[in-house]
Amino acid sequence: MSQSVAPMLAGGRSPLAPASFPDVAPVPGVELTGAAIGLKKGSGAKDLMLVSLAPGTVIAGTLTRSRCPSAPVDWCRRQLPGGRARAIVVNSANANAFTGNAGDRVVDNTVDAAAALFGCPRTEIFVASTGVIGEPVAPRHIGDSLAGLVGRLRPDAWADAAAAIMTTDTFPKAASRQLEIAGRTVTISGIAKGSGMIAPDMATMLAFVFTDAAITAPALQTMAARATDRTFNCITVDSDTSTSDTILLAATGAAGNTPIADHRAKPAAPFAKALEALMTDLAQQVVRDGEGAQKFVTIEVTGAASSRAARRIGLAVANSPLVKTAIAGEDANWGRIVMAVGKAGERADRDRLSIAMGGVTITRDGQLEPAYDETPVAAHLRGREIHIAIDVGVGRGRATVWTCDLTHGYISINADYRS
Amino acid sequence: MSQSVAPMLAGGRSPLAPASFPDVAPVPGVELTGAAIGLKKGSGAKDLMLVSLAPGTVIAGTLTRSRCPSAPVDWCRRQLPGGRARAIVVNSANANAFTGNAGDRVVDNTVDAAAALFGCPRTEIFVASTGVIGEPVAPRHIGDSLAGLVGRLRPDAWADAAAAIMTTDTFPKAASRQLEIAGRTVTISGIAKGSGMIAPDMATMLAFVFTDAAITAPALQTMAARATDRTFNCITVDSDTSTSDTILLAATGAAGNTPIADHRAKPAAPFAKALEALMTDLAQQVVRDGEGAQKFVTIEVTGAASSRAARRIGLAVANSPLVKTAIAGEDANWGRIVMAVGKAGERADRDRLSIAMGGVTITRDGQLEPAYDETPVAAHLRGREIHIAIDVGVGRGRATVWTCDLTHGYISINADYRS
Repeated sequence: MSQSVAPMLAGGRSPLAPASFPDVAPVPGVELTGAAIGLKKGSGAKDLMLVSLAPGTVIAGTLTRSRCPSAPVDWCRRQLPGGRARAIVVNSANANAFTGNAGDRVVDNTVDAAAALFGCPRTEIFVASTGVIGEPVAPRHIGDSLAGLVGRLRPDAWADAAAAIMTTDTFPKAASRQLEIAGRTVTISGIAKGSGMIAPDMATMLAFVFTDAAITAPALQTMAARATDRTFNCITVDSDTSTSDTILLAATGAAGNTPIADHRAKPAAPFAKALEALMTDLAQQVVRDGEGAQKFVTIEVTGAASSRAARRIGLAVANSPLVKTAIAGEDANWGRIVMAVGKAGERADRDRLSIAMGGVTITRDGQLEPAYDETPVAAHLRGREIHIAIDVGVGRGRATVWTCDLTHGYISINADYRS
Repeated sequence: MSQSVAPMLAGGRSPLAPASFPDVAPVPGVELTGAAIGLKKGSGAKDLMLVSLAPGTVIAGTLTRSRCPSAPVDWCRRQLPGGRARAIVVNSANANAFTGNAGDRVVDNTVDAAAALFGCPRTEIFVASTGVIGEPVAPRHIGDSLAGLVGRLRPDAWADAAAAIMTTDTFPKAASRQLEIAGRTVTISGIAKGSGMIAPDMATMLAFVFTDAAITAPALQTMAARATDRTFNCITVDSDTSTSDTILLAATGAAGNTPIADHRAKPAAPFAKALEALMTDLAQQVVRDGEGAQKFVTIEVTGAASSRAARRIGLAVANSPLVKTAIAGEDANWGRIVMAVGKAGERADRDRLSIAMGGVTITRDGQLEPAYDETPVAAHLRGREIHIAIDVGVGRGRATVWTCDLTHGYISINADYRS
């Protein structure tokens, strides 16, 4: 067995995990809890999260593009246009995906129970599920468990909530930011789970972000979609897309700022910036918990035809098994980067392509630097934080994507998971 | 170290290799040879192939879609519209990719030398290179070596030629078919290399197919493109696309059949069928030599909106690291197939999706079969030849794709290659 798999099989934290759970500021209007209801069989681990949101809270979100989405994703897609939320219910250990009509009944029952508890329309209850695909869920188990959780809702239970949504994650993920909008302090706090861009047994990537900013649902949706594009849509562990990916943003309005009604309005800019910073933080934590990950890789693409093209090129590099295994092998194999840029299908000028690793230019204008010395690049690749810069020489589009290496640990985790 | 990597690291043949090199019928009008000119440094192994083609031979081909193609690919793309060929020169060990103007000069020099030897226009010389990216080639070395090879051209040197184009391949690949066209025997014989859909250090997938059929260049190009779509474009090892992928088909006309001038003409049908069978054989051999491969996987997709959609769905399954690692782990993890179908971006009806492995239906109409017993599926997965059937329930489009599993062997080969 290779060395690299040992820490994962031992059940330890990812070597790329942050030193400790961060300080997370409470968000006025938001209370949450995490509890164990027996879905993570025999472990006693937390597996159900309940979040209550103050009346009037608006919600925005982005959902998986999978053509085989889970029942909870179908539900959220129908409710998001309403833009209002009073509660979010999330279970782990079972994805409630590919469960047919029975899966829809589980959602209905959960929503009924939560709507009764919070005295709100069913359309204001949002749900997500993450875990094994295709396994039936006891129809009333989640709904019946909710009443017992209401008395335990607290404004500071971020660690419990983050733990309750974990599956193969090796550490709970959270982040928090504060900013001023016209003299009012506004908080944005969020949690996420994911280990593998997707591990579909233990599907998938979820993130829940909360703010007390006063903001309209359309403005929040626009800012959420933009931030998602530059954060969660810029990470990859294994290129797979889950049945359950769900990102929800809830804004309670309790900060009392003049409501942001347009994402182009002046106070929207600092909010959008803080939101993107927080979501970058959460997204990077997901990559740092990538299955088998030993190295965190930042890929900066410049000189592309557009920012969209830059992201596609970056993701082609980040998803290439040959690039990812070279990084795992601490091999300064820049030829594989050329290959991956070439396959991205975006415009790139082979004769102007420049590649640097760890700040050392390797190729410039389509050829190996005459004085290229591999020594400092090899030293950089022995570290945990790898930086690759690629200029494709055709325009001004740029993007940054994040990924991890592809190791024996990934194979062990995914080949040996059920057996 | 895992068991699965041992056979590869020991330098042995892939466990999925055919028992022996096949009988390959000579093709009237085609002579070939393979020789060692020192590109595979220190090994004495063959690294240069020369093929001579009778005057009047027509040629067709398909080339990589990479935006960073090699110098030989650029050359072939410019000459293919001419449709005539007298010789093909292929070296292994160096891809002549990302070599700037120096790379173009190597091609020019090789073409000059071959055109002088065969007394033909430069436009009738085709070239391909496979091996390390970004390393300069001595400008005249290949061209200067050709004169010594001409005297060694023979009609039956298929094994030598197939060996000369190998890089990380563990066995030489060839196939041969014969058919009758209006009372004339027509032969199609070909060779290929590839181990990994691409291993860009040792780039890449090459195939050279020869026939004595009389056929016009446009008809040959049409049939070549169709057969490629259903064969080499239906295989994947690791989803990477090389700088150098090249498939060339040469038809000498020596069989003396009434020339096929239209791919829709009656005699074209049996030829197209034999061509597809031969190219399927070669393509499957490439997969059977996939880096680290322990299992050969056939994925049949039916019920798609079109055959193109079916192929995309099949390739999404075949390229999913999570599906490939599950197969390596002999794990009947059908939830990962649902995930991969969902991410393909093609229309699929989740509530009509059916999945079978080894002929055993697992899901039907979007739900687990009530009487599903994993025992026979688990037994099937312990074998070398894995069969997955997927019906997506929306139309009549179908496609078959072929891949291999993703093992510790792949990681070892690609993480440890240069170090």
